[in-house]
Amino acid sequence: MTVQPPLSLEHMRLDAVLEGLARGDTAALARAISLVENQREGFERVLTDVHGRIGKGKTHRIGITGPPGAGKSTLTEQLVRIYRARGLKVAVIAVDPTSPFTGGALLGDRIRMESVSLDPGVFIRSMATRGAQGGLATTTEEVADVLEAFGFDRILIETVGVGQTELDVAATAETTVLVLVPESGDGIQTLKAGVMEIAELYVINKSDRPGADKLKQEVEVMLGIRRGNAFAHIAPHHNPRAAKRGGGRRGEAAATDSWEAAVLTTVASNGEGIADLVAALDRHHAYLATSGKLDERRKRRLAARTRAVVNRAIRQWVLDETQAEELLARRLDEVAAGTTSPYEVAAEVLKRLRNGK
Amino acid sequence: MTVQPPLSLEHMRLDAVLEGLARGDTAALARAISLVENQREGFERVLTDVHGRIGKGKTHRIGITGPPGAGKSTLTEQLVRIYRARGLKVAVIAVDPTSPFTGGALLGDRIRMESVSLDPGVFIRSMATRGAQGGLATTTEEVADVLEAFGFDRILIETVGVGQTELDVAATAETTVLVLVPESGDGIQTLKAGVMEIAELYVINKSDRPGADKLKQEVEVMLGIRRGNAFAHIAPHHNPRAAKRGGGRRGEAAATDSWEAAVLTTVASNGEGIADLVAALDRHHAYLATSGKLDERRKRRLAARTRAVVNRAIRQWVLDETQAEELLARRLDEVAAGTTSPYEVAAEVLKRLRNGK
Repeated sequence: MTVQPPLSLEHMRLDAVLEGLARGDTAALARAISLVENQREGFERVLTDVHGRIGKGKTHRIGITGPPGAGKSTLTEQLVRIYRARGLKVAVIAVDPTSPFTGGALLGDRIRMESVSLDPGVFIRSMATRGAQGGLATTTEEVADVLEAFGFDRILIETVGVGQTELDVAATAETTVLVLVPESGDGIQTLKAGVMEIAELYVINKSDRPGADKLKQEVEVMLGIRRGNAFAHIAPHHNPRAAKRGGGRRGEAAATDSWEAAVLTTVASNGEGIADLVAALDRHHAYLATSGKLDERRKRRLAARTRAVVNRAIRQWVLDETQAEELLARRLDEVAAGTTSPYEVAAEVLKRLRNGK
Repeated sequence: MTVQPPLSLEHMRLDAVLEGLARGDTAALARAISLVENQREGFERVLTDVHGRIGKGKTHRIGITGPPGAGKSTLTEQLVRIYRARGLKVAVIAVDPTSPFTGGALLGDRIRMESVSLDPGVFIRSMATRGAQGGLATTTEEVADVLEAFGFDRILIETVGVGQTELDVAATAETTVLVLVPESGDGIQTLKAGVMEIAELYVINKSDRPGADKLKQEVEVMLGIRRGNAFAHIAPHHNPRAAKRGGGRRGEAAATDSWEAAVLTTVASNGEGIADLVAALDRHHAYLATSGKLDERRKRRLAARTRAVVNRAIRQWVLDETQAEELLARRLDEVAAGTTSPYEVAAEVLKRLRNGK
């Protein structure tokens, strides 16, 4: 007598998911991503399977970040349209680290993406912190791996906000685009330190509004593109200040030491400037590939990821093995009373580990 | 024969730091914070010592967050002035998660705080992600513990940006203030989901600029304070929508179920509205204390912190014990070549742990 398993993703056999992925079945893709996003049983097998099939430099991962209200979703939608017109398969990962508070801030934006969401050559996925136990950047990168293995030519990773988590997520892409609007000008002096230096391309969106030219100039001055001279150089050529800036990108100085960041203007709502942005994106990808930076960058990312994956696995294992949860629960009253400190509880867990539990 | 140790903070004897802390010596305080921030040897002893002496409800921790350019530093400086005029000791932790890119974005802001920085009753400390191996929110909370034990009456925790990390940091405070400016109005529809719901107090700063009234109304409508009626109720009283909102704050629904968030207007540059803000802060602290929420909230934070501290200690221990670093270095070429996946490396580290190294 056999019992029918319920028709949930957890119960779909892992082999069927892997076969479906290899066959190009979109339903299997969605299931594989859910497995990975929620770290369900077998997710490591999916990712190990995927790992051997990616990194050939065919897929371009593009991070799109910037303050709320900058028009990132509209810009993303326009990029999708152009890529689709060129016959490329496009995936969009919309990452919203703030969602735990509300359960999905991006719904409104997703509705706006409706025009492209019915196209079978487009795959759109929203992700929130919820399921990302091991760090949102790591999970985003893992989902992008699955999408790359599935054969997408462009993976657009859109984040909401300009905080540290959002920058970490954007930094998993090969090219990062920072989207600003004329209204951002006011905050640019504060923004510039840190946030501004992460991108290879800067877009002043809604550039038909007052203040766009002024902001463009400010960003260019800040990036060292424009100094005494009236015209900006936006092509990739050697610039010692660019090299210096590159050093800010966590040990990836080499990745930008002869790419000069470009500042572009767009009006995403009517498509103005999008073709130039697409050209600049292609130029940066070509630059990465021909200079060997793509491979270098990929190795660095893999090193960081392997470290993150090891940490995640260890944490889970230790919690399971030492019944640390149960210990925590018992010690909590003492911690609250001030008689035991969190550091003494940590020492106790470590002692259990040292004594073989 | 004795060798004189070099005069660095690492070599100052831990006992001397602890004695100095107990004596109220500011140099010892600075050293203790450095130990904690950089997790130098003995930092757990400092924090264990501190743990038994805090949590009496005398100190009020106030988180101040908001987009870049909102005037948070000026607002903080004004709060410091008022508290000082009342004879209270004030500490400011300026947290800048984006600093790794530049090595300190807050320098400009710190210079603006000059007017209060020479007052011995004021202690100002900047923190970046750099030293925060175990998560910036945890480290910020640990530094605040040291400051509380030292006897500060108010601890102002100022963050730059409105991303997930910044919200996590702000959430370690007892009261969170979200600072907006009239220019923020444009992004409010996007901001509102998630970011907006974390605060107990909302400040429209630079409220002498156009759009301040409109933004105040929008925020009030969004918070459910203002609906059909023309006047907003900003006093703490029961409101079912406020209770519903409270549920957004990660399992701390109870902490806000009868506090109605208030929207205030200020012009920090000339001190306008600051006295009202101080009164609202006092009101929220009194509400927390009398309702029992302060204790409840403190217990929840301690549970979360203990968990974070245990995870941090475990990760460090495992990396030391298994020589995982050395294994990672050896496996990295295989990972880059695609023959080994990060997940297989993680499994290998776990196998070493299971076999007792």
